[in-house]
Amino acid sequence: MQRLHRSIETLVRSYDTYGLVNQAGSENLPSRDSIADILRGLDELVFPGFREIGALDHDNLRLSTAEKVYHLARELIGEVEKSIAFSSRLGEASCGHDGCHAAAELIVDDFFDELPLIRGMLAKDLQAAFEGDPAAKSTAEVILSYPGFEAITIHRMAHFFWTREVPLIPRIMSELIHGRTGIDIHPGAEIGESFFIDHGTGVVIGETTVIGRNVKLYQGVTLGALSVKKDGVNKKRHPTIEDKVTIYSGATILGGETVIGRGSTIGGNVWITESVPPGAMVYTTSGDQVVRTK
Amino acid sequence: MQRLHRSIETLVRSYDTYGLVNQAGSENLPSRDSIADILRGLDELVFPGFREIGALDHDNLRLSTAEKVYHLARELIGEVEKSIAFSSRLGEASCGHDGCHAAAELIVDDFFDELPLIRGMLAKDLQAAFEGDPAAKSTAEVILSYPGFEAITIHRMAHFFWTREVPLIPRIMSELIHGRTGIDIHPGAEIGESFFIDHGTGVVIGETTVIGRNVKLYQGVTLGALSVKKDGVNKKRHPTIEDKVTIYSGATILGGETVIGRGSTIGGNVWITESVPPGAMVYTTSGDQVVRTK
Amino acid sequence: MQRLHRSIETLVRSYDTYGLVNQAGSENLPSRDSIADILRGLDELVFPGFREIGALDHDNLRLSTAEKVYHLARELIGEVEKSIAFSSRLGEASCGHDGCHAAAELIVDDFFDELPLIRGMLAKDLQAAFEGDPAAKSTAEVILSYPGFEAITIHRMAHFFWTREVPLIPRIMSELIHGRTGIDIHPGAEIGESFFIDHGTGVVIGETTVIGRNVKLYQGVTLGALSVKKDGVNKKRHPTIEDKVTIYSGATILGGETVIGRGSTIGGNVWITESVPPGAMVYTTSGDQVVRTK
Amino acid sequence: MQRLHRSIETLVRSYDTYGLVNQAGSENLPSRDSIADILRGLDELVFPGFREIGALDHDNLRLSTAEKVYHLARELIGEVEKSIAFSSRLGEASCGHDGCHAAAELIVDDFFDELPLIRGMLAKDLQAAFEGDPAAKSTAEVILSYPGFEAITIHRMAHFFWTREVPLIPRIMSELIHGRTGIDIHPGAEIGESFFIDHGTGVVIGETTVIGRNVKLYQGVTLGALSVKKDGVNKKRHPTIEDKVTIYSGATILGGETVIGRGSTIGGNVWITESVPPGAMVYTTSGDQVVRTK
Amino acid sequence: MQRLHRSIETLVRSYDTYGLVNQAGSENLPSRDSIADILRGLDELVFPGFREIGALDHDNLRLSTAEKVYHLARELIGEVEKSIAFSSRLGEASCGHDGCHAAAELIVDDFFDELPLIRGMLAKDLQAAFEGDPAAKSTAEVILSYPGFEAITIHRMAHFFWTREVPLIPRIMSELIHGRTGIDIHPGAEIGESFFIDHGTGVVIGETTVIGRNVKLYQGVTLGALSVKKDGVNKKRHPTIEDKVTIYSGATILGGETVIGRGSTIGGNVWITESVPPGAMVYTTSGDQVVRTK
Amino acid sequence: MQRLHRSIETLVRSYDTYGLVNQAGSENLPSRDSIADILRGLDELVFPGFREIGALDHDNLRLSTAEKVYHLARELIGEVEKSIAFSSRLGEASCGHDGCHAAAELIVDDFFDELPLIRGMLAKDLQAAFEGDPAAKSTAEVILSYPGFEAITIHRMAHFFWTREVPLIPRIMSELIHGRTGIDIHPGAEIGESFFIDHGTGVVIGETTVIGRNVKLYQGVTLGALSVKKDGVNKKRHPTIEDKVTIYSGATILGGETVIGRGSTIGGNVWITESVPPGAMVYTTSGDQVVRTK
Repeated sequence: MQRLHRSIETLVRSYDTYGLVNQAGSENLPSRDSIADILRGLDELVFPGFREIGALDHDNLRLSTAEKVYHLARELIGEVEKSIAFSSRLGEASCGHDGCHAAAELIVDDFFDELPLIRGMLAKDLQAAFEGDPAAKSTAEVILSYPGFEAITIHRMAHFFWTREVPLIPRIMSELIHGRTGIDIHPGAEIGESFFIDHGTGVVIGETTVIGRNVKLYQGVTLGALSVKKDGVNKKRHPTIEDKVTIYSGATILGGETVIGRGSTIGGNVWITESVPPGAMVYTTSGDQVVRTK
Repeated sequence: MQRLHRSIETLVRSYDTYGLVNQAGSENLPSRDSIADILRGLDELVFPGFREIGALDHDNLRLSTAEKVYHLARELIGEVEKSIAFSSRLGEASCGHDGCHAAAELIVDDFFDELPLIRGMLAKDLQAAFEGDPAAKSTAEVILSYPGFEAITIHRMAHFFWTREVPLIPRIMSELIHGRTGIDIHPGAEIGESFFIDHGTGVVIGETTVIGRNVKLYQGVTLGALSVKKDGVNKKRHPTIEDKVTIYSGATILGGETVIGRGSTIGGNVWITESVPPGAMVYTTSGDQVVRTK
Repeated sequence: MQRLHRSIETLVRSYDTYGLVNQAGSENLPSRDSIADILRGLDELVFPGFREIGALDHDNLRLSTAEKVYHLARELIGEVEKSIAFSSRLGEASCGHDGCHAAAELIVDDFFDELPLIRGMLAKDLQAAFEGDPAAKSTAEVILSYPGFEAITIHRMAHFFWTREVPLIPRIMSELIHGRTGIDIHPGAEIGESFFIDHGTGVVIGETTVIGRNVKLYQGVTLGALSVKKDGVNKKRHPTIEDKVTIYSGATILGGETVIGRGSTIGGNVWITESVPPGAMVYTTSGDQVVRTK
Repeated sequence: MQRLHRSIETLVRSYDTYGLVNQAGSENLPSRDSIADILRGLDELVFPGFREIGALDHDNLRLSTAEKVYHLARELIGEVEKSIAFSSRLGEASCGHDGCHAAAELIVDDFFDELPLIRGMLAKDLQAAFEGDPAAKSTAEVILSYPGFEAITIHRMAHFFWTREVPLIPRIMSELIHGRTGIDIHPGAEIGESFFIDHGTGVVIGETTVIGRNVKLYQGVTLGALSVKKDGVNKKRHPTIEDKVTIYSGATILGGETVIGRGSTIGGNVWITESVPPGAMVYTTSGDQVVRTK
Repeated sequence: MQRLHRSIETLVRSYDTYGLVNQAGSENLPSRDSIADILRGLDELVFPGFREIGALDHDNLRLSTAEKVYHLARELIGEVEKSIAFSSRLGEASCGHDGCHAAAELIVDDFFDELPLIRGMLAKDLQAAFEGDPAAKSTAEVILSYPGFEAITIHRMAHFFWTREVPLIPRIMSELIHGRTGIDIHPGAEIGESFFIDHGTGVVIGETTVIGRNVKLYQGVTLGALSVKKDGVNKKRHPTIEDKVTIYSGATILGGETVIGRGSTIGGNVWITESVPPGAMVYTTSGDQVVRTK
Repeated sequence: MQRLHRSIETLVRSYDTYGLVNQAGSENLPSRDSIADILRGLDELVFPGFREIGALDHDNLRLSTAEKVYHLARELIGEVEKSIAFSSRLGEASCGHDGCHAAAELIVDDFFDELPLIRGMLAKDLQAAFEGDPAAKSTAEVILSYPGFEAITIHRMAHFFWTREVPLIPRIMSELIHGRTGIDIHPGAEIGESFFIDHGTGVVIGETTVIGRNVKLYQGVTLGALSVKKDGVNKKRHPTIEDKVTIYSGATILGGETVIGRGSTIGGNVWITESVPPGAMVYTTSGDQVVRTK
């Protein structure tokens, strides 16, 4: 125990030494665990009847919805306020205590205004998923078990906070769902309606990606950047995918100038760094494969 | 708060508008959280001594096993009943309240009859994992830490419910383990004994896949479909893998007619859409790679 | 219920039959759930102010640190003791009850001695992540949301226990973080400072891999073995990556003799089984790709 | 275990045998645990800032109040509905499912209308307690630690439901606080403002007791019935205590006709079964006591 | 913190010094918290439908009963075993590890055999309570809210373990209910059927009390001992109450030879140390009371 | 819901109206729930091996003690700081944020210094309880189940904080144990060693009571005040009980000048308002009791 006593002293002192791995001396940050709880709550609000362990209480639907909204509003305001105050300390924004709180309230009010529209978007994504997978037996199955649908659900909410320039929270949201599904969608990506990702593990969609309507991706697809210089200029580094494009598993599409034209099909494992015209079909010939009998 | 009050009204009204993203008006569905709890319980039953936080209570092994079985039976009957009632409402099956409950009881009784056999299968999978990975120091290590073994454990239970035509639950089970391991095995897949997946992230095994005995897969392998038309006909869309086949990381094998012959070896990143004879070795030549000194 | 009663009997009897899937008759093993709790606690200790749901209690930082250290020390000693006793039963080590406990205490004392150094390493990894990703807005964002940074955090702790030859626990730790991030780093891998994995899903880093300083990996990179014979000899089976190497997504590098020379860049999807000289740039030409207008 | 198996059968069969100790075959009753939770919630609503473990969130006082009210309203409606439906089954009231729910909603709406008035009453009780006990250092101390104040707080809420003829719930409430404080106030008792019970253990206040303003009781006081015949007639069986009466510890006052006149003082251990005029002082002479030196 | 560090050392050393307040060096004792949990569980088993928060699951009544019985049997065996082993260490009984476990199993098996009979007794107590209190509106109200009925429920179970000479547990049970109700019934007391205590706070019933059928007590009644010498002889120190006796509040009856004859009525606050013939009515005249107008 | 919406507004506005029942606008107070948790923790520290649900971890007794002490110190400092700041706002003390925190640290440090001495006192109380009750079978039984021993345990800790003039907390502590045992000991009371209360329900011991060594009380004893004027002068209002006094159930002793001389015995239900010489025996003759045969 004598050694532990000494280790504690060293550790506490080190909290003043390595500035980067150390928030001990500064103020409160948004909490990953709280945001995970908030997402669970929003999920119940967006899909009433699908997430509750017991039966939904129909008689009291209005009361239970009000309770959830007030609870989530309070929790969200707290986390958003901490995020804004954080960037205020970094000099990116400027608000005192009351200002940060008021700004957070405004954003959260707007978010709940927006929520019915988000539900409308998700209704189209759900239809796209159901129609896009022959194995899907019902839309209920999609809501209950499709990771791609779960990912777009969270993305559409995280993206709202991204557009409102709330720091940290959108990325925490996107990484929570990345952790659960293996689907990594940056909250900055703009994604049109009726979007579907099948299987999904390994999908990466970068910050400045723009995706049109009725696009469908499979597992392992990367929509990434060519250059990774950090030059401070916030320019488009990730591709544009136009409407009605399908991209098969393992395909890699890179570059902010790259546009995949409307209605194209990108084959599995294809590597693309330049634009593709509308209606194109891109695939690799497997000419180098050798089949040898042992 | 006035705006929140209005948002609540809009949200509650929207529960009647977007039919697809909305179960508020209908009956109870199986719960993802409950099924996650059930899987944790079954895991304790299948691997006694490996999952408990404290020591297993040897003196009372019979009592604690009985308690777990009755608890899990009751929980499972509830979830299975809700699933069957759901498909009854969709017109796929037909049972009233009592009929659905009785049908659920029968299936769950059968499941517990089957459980010792499933444990026997898993004993062979465990041996295959231990022998197939030079890094494995003991079978205990495999049980405690191999995601591939965890995935096949859940799959063998989910597959039982699939064969009994229980809707939703098998898919919820397979997606729970997909979320935890990155291994996506459709519960419909038929997998023979002594099966092993190493590392596993990104593996996809489709609904109508058939896999023989002593097959071994690495991370990122896809056993998928060529065509994704949803024509309502439930035909074989995914490949058949015969006994003693090894498939290295990133390989893609597609198509319901595709058969990988007994004892074949499929190399990393290979792309296969046609059958391969028994004993074959398939690999890509890496002729196109350029090594350039900067 | 009569059938359940019989199933319980069969199940309890089967606990004596399938030796492999059955720890019911033997002693206590380390618990995966406990180790998950310990990792959460260590995470709070390493990043004070980033993981707590409420604000960190600055006035009582010393008290709360002491409390956490004593708690985690006690929990860790328990799990390490069970692990050592397990390998003692396998004949790999030898310690009676008191000996195992004393050995566990020594290792855990050493671990807390080491923890400030680990924090120093993580400060450099954090800087590397922040500089390596143009999308990163702050180091706080990296700590709060980057799976690659989370994976290296756990790896540096798991690796400590690996070097002290504690069985099971390092692998349980690495698989817990593999499950959360899709990044599979064997605890045996030696990784130098300023290491960064971006996105990360599908990364595999094998047991005997050696990685230098300032190395950067993208999603889907495999650093694996060529041969998977289990011959009992503990030789180097995985590659060596020298300082300042960047490896893009999907690249596969195999073999214990393979060395990627200092400062090299390995392109996406490249497949390497032989050494590459310092300063090299390796990439595939995408000559076989066909772009066809539908 | 064979004997346990048999005991289970006997027990389940006995659920059909002893009708009185057995609700297994009938519908849902209000839950004591739920009502305990509701009381905890109401306590937070009535004394904001006194019951929360952390600091009250002033910025979001309106949001957190709304959340609590909607939550408690939903929970209360559920319990009240079950209570009304129960008495409907007994034939005491009559409502179908929808009717019982609507009646419950109405009562709960009225309750929350009434709550600010109840707070006003409690403000006077609080002042009476503070002034009535020389040991009280602040009103905060009374709210945080006086069982007599806790008992009147719950009584004023339980009494509301009693006046609305909600069965079971008022008595469950009064017994919950009886269990915590040893003060047994029947919810039917009518108690005027500025009421104070000091110490309180052993106090019993019967169903038809009427108490005026500024009354003060000490521990062990009984306000009870003379006759305990159960003749179905709901007549006044317990005494009337007029304004400004003080009753010292252990006094017993019995009978529905008994009136303790305004401003009287009743001494410790006194036994009263007849009315006492206003301004009286009643005490026992301790003439029978013997002091003997051993 | 330096002082705390020293206080810890002193405290740990003191664990070897004050033998009486210190169990740190000896083996495991039964746990008050576990026994509280067991009592909650037994309460659900005895009153199915009255204690569950949600509705009782009628379809699965047999399954849920089996689960509860196995759970409670396992918990009870553990606590009983620890109690017997404790008295074995004190030299009062003698059993090695296996012997204590086997003895505990036997006692718990017998307890569950007895449970339906205990329910039969409680049915009569319930009827007595309902008939004995004019304020009782239904038997459900008695089960849900009468502390006297709760106390006799626990007593009848605690008494079973007392008769089987299990140490510690019966007293822990009786004090748990004493804490909740203010009714202190020693588990050794023999109490006949149709027993009712109204209000109850302050009731004390001693170890060797014998109570007949249809007895009714009010709050504050003491059935105690005259002599409190600890002479090691286990003789009858508390009174005998014959059938159909009513004892009003505050009465004190002392002595092992004291018999209250069948059908007697004992008035409030009466003090009795000698036997009373059958059919007697005992009361105090309140001659010493003075009513004075102020 | 419209009415609820309005009730919320009224309620929130009322938080500014009734000043007394309303802490919403002011700062944080000590939390009753936190203090209950702290008392549970202190109980484990004082009686190691008696309160834990599982077995005490002997190997790690030092670690677990350290963990508990640091945890409880942190929690206690927080609550004490809030209490001191509260009285500072009332003008009773004066400390700014840092001053209140520093004062709280000092008091809590002193408390842990004192704890081994408190354990020494409790060892004597335990012995007194064991010897004083013929029904006590072992000292373990006393620790596990005697409410009188539980009450003196908490009192000795609450009294420490009283002597240090910490507001609110000592009273919250004494009421928590009053609620659990029905024994109401004001934290200001000075109680000598080897103190025992048997049964205990209804005991009241006032603020300025002084009790010597080897005193024994039974249930329902009141040591109270004659006058209850609140004149701000903090004078002795409650009696003095000298060494070796026994007071039987229901006795009432009042007045700050009243001294019960060394070695006296006070009979049941006796009412005393004047001093009694050493060695006295006080009892009532029951001359007024009437025994009438019905």
